[in-house]
Amino acid sequence: MNTEEVATKLVDLCRKGEWMKAVDDLYAKDIVSVEAREMENMPAEMHGIDQVRGKTEWWEKNMEVHNVKVGGPFVARDTFVVQFDIDVTEKASKKRMQMSEVGIYTVKDGKVAREEFLPLAQKKE
Amino acid sequence: MNTEEVATKLVDLCRKGEWMKAVDDLYAKDIVSVEAREMENMPAEMHGIDQVRGKTEWWEKNMEVHNVKVGGPFVARDTFVVQFDIDVTEKASKKRMQMSEVGIYTVKDGKVAREEFLPLAQKKE
Repeated sequence: MNTEEVATKLVDLCRKGEWMKAVDDLYAKDIVSVEAREMENMPAEMHGIDQVRGKTEWWEKNMEVHNVKVGGPFVARDTFVVQFDIDVTEKASKKRMQMSEVGIYTVKDGKVAREEFLPLAQKKE
Repeated sequence: MNTEEVATKLVDLCRKGEWMKAVDDLYAKDIVSVEAREMENMPAEMHGIDQVRGKTEWWEKNMEVHNVKVGGPFVARDTFVVQFDIDVTEKASKKRMQMSEVGIYTVKDGKVAREEFLPLAQKKE
């Protein structure tokens, strides 16, 4: 698959909430996944598909997703960008949050080789 | 300026349509600017602030901008992403277009050192 085909499939699966299927079908074994910051006991940067599956399991176990709006994909060369607007409740704290972020994905040999997430900057007064 | 400060200033200037001021104030002398494809006589990849000023002049001379919606910035580490939805008429052909793209910007020493633009993928039937 070329970059646009991988991007389109990833967006389709995310719109259906099939996060783990996206990882299983589209991610390289040696995927590097970079969050803006570390979360709980997880480092910001993860290596390998098993760590990324672990993060996806943690997300599905700990978060109740009310709605996801997926924008894009924006595609050029080996790179694509997807925007996520997520309305979610953290199950433990029952805290409901609206998160907005983009993912920058790099495709190599028809698989996602790197993903990097960037949150929307907070507006200053 | 850190990445978020550069990002916020760039978004503010783009919202005001002050494209050239954004280049003058925020871009490194050795900026690398990458479009998804070449345009007219301009290569996809340009090097140095003079080439980028030339591209900006070409844009301002040839395009009548009706409306620009600027989304973001999305910021992490040395990188930020901005979404542009532009309603524009090409003056020569009088063709009106709605363009949607993101820019991925890399900040080094308080200046934009690289920008890369990715258009929204066309929906397949």
